[in-house]
Amino acid sequence: MKFERLVGERFKEKPAGSAIDSFALMTRGGYIKYVASGIYSSYAVLRRITRKIEQIIREEMDAIDGQEVLFPVAMPASLWRESGRYEAVGRELMRFNDRNDNPMLLGMTHEEAAVHLVREYGRSYVKYPFMIYQIQTKFRDEPRPRGGLIRAREFTMKDAYSFHTSQEDMDSYFIRCRDAYERIFARVGIPQVAAVASDSGMMGGGVSYEFMLPASVGEDLIAACGNCGCRANVEAAACIVKNERSFVEKPLTKVSTPGMKTIADVCGYLNLPVERSCKAVAYQNNMTDEYVVVFIRGDLDVNDTKLANLIQEDLRPAVIDEAGGIAAGFIGPYNLRGATALYDRSLAGINDLCCGANETDYHYTGLDIERDVGQVAYHDLAKAVEGGICPECGEPALTIWRGVEVGHIFQLGTKYTESMHMDYMDENGRLRHPLMGCYGIGVGRLAASVCEARHDAYGPIWPVSIAPWQAHLCCVRADDGSVKAFADDLYARFESAGIEVIYDDRLVSVGVMFSDADLIGAPLRVIASPRNVKDGRCEILSRDKAVSVRAAADEAADTIKRLLRELSARQTGV
Amino acid sequence: MKFERLVGERFKEKPAGSAIDSFALMTRGGYIKYVASGIYSSYAVLRRITRKIEQIIREEMDAIDGQEVLFPVAMPASLWRESGRYEAVGRELMRFNDRNDNPMLLGMTHEEAAVHLVREYGRSYVKYPFMIYQIQTKFRDEPRPRGGLIRAREFTMKDAYSFHTSQEDMDSYFIRCRDAYERIFARVGIPQVAAVASDSGMMGGGVSYEFMLPASVGEDLIAACGNCGCRANVEAAACIVKNERSFVEKPLTKVSTPGMKTIADVCGYLNLPVERSCKAVAYQNNMTDEYVVVFIRGDLDVNDTKLANLIQEDLRPAVIDEAGGIAAGFIGPYNLRGATALYDRSLAGINDLCCGANETDYHYTGLDIERDVGQVAYHDLAKAVEGGICPECGEPALTIWRGVEVGHIFQLGTKYTESMHMDYMDENGRLRHPLMGCYGIGVGRLAASVCEARHDAYGPIWPVSIAPWQAHLCCVRADDGSVKAFADDLYARFESAGIEVIYDDRLVSVGVMFSDADLIGAPLRVIASPRNVKDGRCEILSRDKAVSVRAAADEAADTIKRLLRELSARQTGV
Repeated sequence: MKFERLVGERFKEKPAGSAIDSFALMTRGGYIKYVASGIYSSYAVLRRITRKIEQIIREEMDAIDGQEVLFPVAMPASLWRESGRYEAVGRELMRFNDRNDNPMLLGMTHEEAAVHLVREYGRSYVKYPFMIYQIQTKFRDEPRPRGGLIRAREFTMKDAYSFHTSQEDMDSYFIRCRDAYERIFARVGIPQVAAVASDSGMMGGGVSYEFMLPASVGEDLIAACGNCGCRANVEAAACIVKNERSFVEKPLTKVSTPGMKTIADVCGYLNLPVERSCKAVAYQNNMTDEYVVVFIRGDLDVNDTKLANLIQEDLRPAVIDEAGGIAAGFIGPYNLRGATALYDRSLAGINDLCCGANETDYHYTGLDIERDVGQVAYHDLAKAVEGGICPECGEPALTIWRGVEVGHIFQLGTKYTESMHMDYMDENGRLRHPLMGCYGIGVGRLAASVCEARHDAYGPIWPVSIAPWQAHLCCVRADDGSVKAFADDLYARFESAGIEVIYDDRLVSVGVMFSDADLIGAPLRVIASPRNVKDGRCEILSRDKAVSVRAAADEAADTIKRLLRELSARQTGV
Repeated sequence: MKFERLVGERFKEKPAGSAIDSFALMTRGGYIKYVASGIYSSYAVLRRITRKIEQIIREEMDAIDGQEVLFPVAMPASLWRESGRYEAVGRELMRFNDRNDNPMLLGMTHEEAAVHLVREYGRSYVKYPFMIYQIQTKFRDEPRPRGGLIRAREFTMKDAYSFHTSQEDMDSYFIRCRDAYERIFARVGIPQVAAVASDSGMMGGGVSYEFMLPASVGEDLIAACGNCGCRANVEAAACIVKNERSFVEKPLTKVSTPGMKTIADVCGYLNLPVERSCKAVAYQNNMTDEYVVVFIRGDLDVNDTKLANLIQEDLRPAVIDEAGGIAAGFIGPYNLRGATALYDRSLAGINDLCCGANETDYHYTGLDIERDVGQVAYHDLAKAVEGGICPECGEPALTIWRGVEVGHIFQLGTKYTESMHMDYMDENGRLRHPLMGCYGIGVGRLAASVCEARHDAYGPIWPVSIAPWQAHLCCVRADDGSVKAFADDLYARFESAGIEVIYDDRLVSVGVMFSDADLIGAPLRVIASPRNVKDGRCEILSRDKAVSVRAAADEAADTIKRLLRELSARQTGV
């Protein structure tokens, strides 16, 4: 198509408040337009990209025997009451009443709708396994939408649901799906995406994987082992530390530490390494306001997700006042009153610790938990750290990197099939609940993530597979008749060769023309200019400038096709 | 794919309460599943059909220079306040508040979102004309959903919006779009769809067309002229009648008509043709409860849409009680008190009428409105009737048929661009509001309508262009090794020839296999059976049984491709 017809504006100025490059470029390049917090309209440039992404996803889902279906966006509350989620999910679930006062909701995920669709179909074991998926709009009333399409309230998602009659079958399908996801991410141009064990599993385990794109703007932290290659979300990664007991038994000794409320202060004052301190982190139960104190080695931090998984109740950071009965900044395990104590396993097998004395302006030294407090249970409650010990191979080779979650696959077990009374007759005539897996990819977030991973200061560098156009034809000096005729001829040749081309023949400066082309980010740029036309050749450049060739008019289309093939192989590794 | 893997159930029994064949067949055939009133999930069979429909629509929209975009499903109320529709639209607009108590709504159409997207882009006349469209989920809280996908609350729609700087340009684009719509309906297999002038225009006029599929289950009535071919929705069709004055002047005479409240009763009793009666139809103003009486020739009915357009206020059929001061069943124009009188033009130029005497149990004969009541204004308020006079050619050749609306195109003028302050600088530096057109097609309704137009008692007869599969391969007696091997070989050949084939090799009776195939409705059925295999040939039948050929295994794929081409040409006229 002609560039001048492309609806949407392109800007030089970085939009205000866009800390994320992909968001800034998509705004500047006429990809998206803000409608409301976390809600955007897409211009044609982005829609061309998302349609290609959707098609790649579709092909890979079909290749693992998926069947495309369509669930409703608006569902009756009764469906979500069956699973208990209507009550259990918070305000991110958008609830409303229809004209007849029936409570309804907007789907943010479709487990209930999936079970509803196949509940009667799946009555016999012979129907299993099967997988259904949709590509559909979802709405999640996020408290803090951010980064444009990275975390939107309304978004397009591919969500898939598989049903199985045995754990072995579930596991083997899960691997097929993980592999399909890896093919999808490779095909859209980010083969560096890594499957990472997430919260619901443990490192190296396997009932839930997040697919993480390494990116400095990512909200997630990933622990990866440089030795064995295993990876986990920091929320899920086991934290292993080596402790050594001191052979010298020291007595528990109260010391005055006036005004020293932090571990750094206290250890500095007492001249102790932080690894020999017992830090207290105080929480309060959201319902009862009761205090919960986590004791942890001074150099480590509490992983709130692990804590929440252990406690199974909602906690918040404690606000400690006079009436609380505990001494803020001076809390310790010995003689603690008015709070539940939990111990991180970083404190196991270590003695001679400093800790709070539960009295303002005093600490203890020489703490030996087993001697002074007694037998306690130790839990894994600490965040994994850079250089930490890999729970798989035991080497101190963990690195921590930031990532954007571009996909997520779960094993759901019988959570939904049991609560929603879906069952099948097995080979022996017994009624059983099928096992279920679910598999999500956000289409818009994926487009934004590819942009995040593949851009320069001037614009996105789209891979061939999802680029809005394959070639951007620039007619520099369209007021020069011979240049215009040459470019028009190229345009006609490209179109008839089936090349997706956008043709800019506006009477604008070269600077404007090229900076607009940078924002569109087509993998190849073809330049017809007075200088080129003189010797009857156009110039063909890759968007990243790595490739630059000159071709005569009658060979340009073939050259483009060859370059696209080469670029494509290099970009996706497929 | 293998039929046995197809998720969804097929039934023999017609579902309860389904007066509409397409709804019954889509339920019986595993196309849709009821989720809530007017809300359905789609199984893979239907999703394959709707994806093909969407692709045809996309191609035709692109061919008239449309650019595919995507608007949000959930929009802030503020956007609809700009146009005034947030307040103006009734309860079919689904309103709700988000977690921060911001009022929001679900899009049932996207004029506001379209203007919002291009308001800045369209600041100069040089950008015009342009058209943007989307294919997206919509929600309309219908009071009476019916017929499955024919009138659903949630539905997928293609909606397009064009912008122009002159009426001439608008008109010429409107014709292009109408032609594109006609190609779409032809390509999906219902070339009989007719463009019909609708309510917002008048017959033969042209600022709004509905595209009507003739169908007995249709909710709309269309008046079509058998002579000149012009068509209009009955809601919009002018009603023209010929009246002749009687040369005999008769006096206004009160006659006793005890208990005779209907025109039929009165005319029968007085031995008058109904065409010589003046019928009264009483309404009440919804706000003020005041009476409005429409006088109309006794053989005609009031067209409520025309009345609403004239009055511009909400009326309801009157409830007349003692206190009302008017005599129910005996209302007439002479000495009418306590009501506003309106006169249909069917009463113009006629005398010697019978009418109510505004007194219980009495009528008048000999009414001459101009003589007895005085000069009154006549309006076109009657429904066009079968055999009526065509307002275009003047011949009494109107026929009335029922239709399902499968598309609608409007000229919106500057309604939205003016209220939402979208303007552009014209050639002379003057600010002006662009003209806007909008163009809708419901995807699910279109699928259901094709089914409605093309089915028999056993199932849908899908046209090649949108059929879920092109060929349905039936292996009759899959327990016979040689038959199974023959069918497996055909399946492999078809797949490698790129034929979309569904393969049924279940061990079920021929009856079950064929009735399931009827419900899937693939245009061609290929049968491998012991009898066929004996002479090394399969049988290829069209779904409508019009074509039946036998082919050897190595020629079957080519035969299928040839038959598909022939069928396709016949079905779509394209």
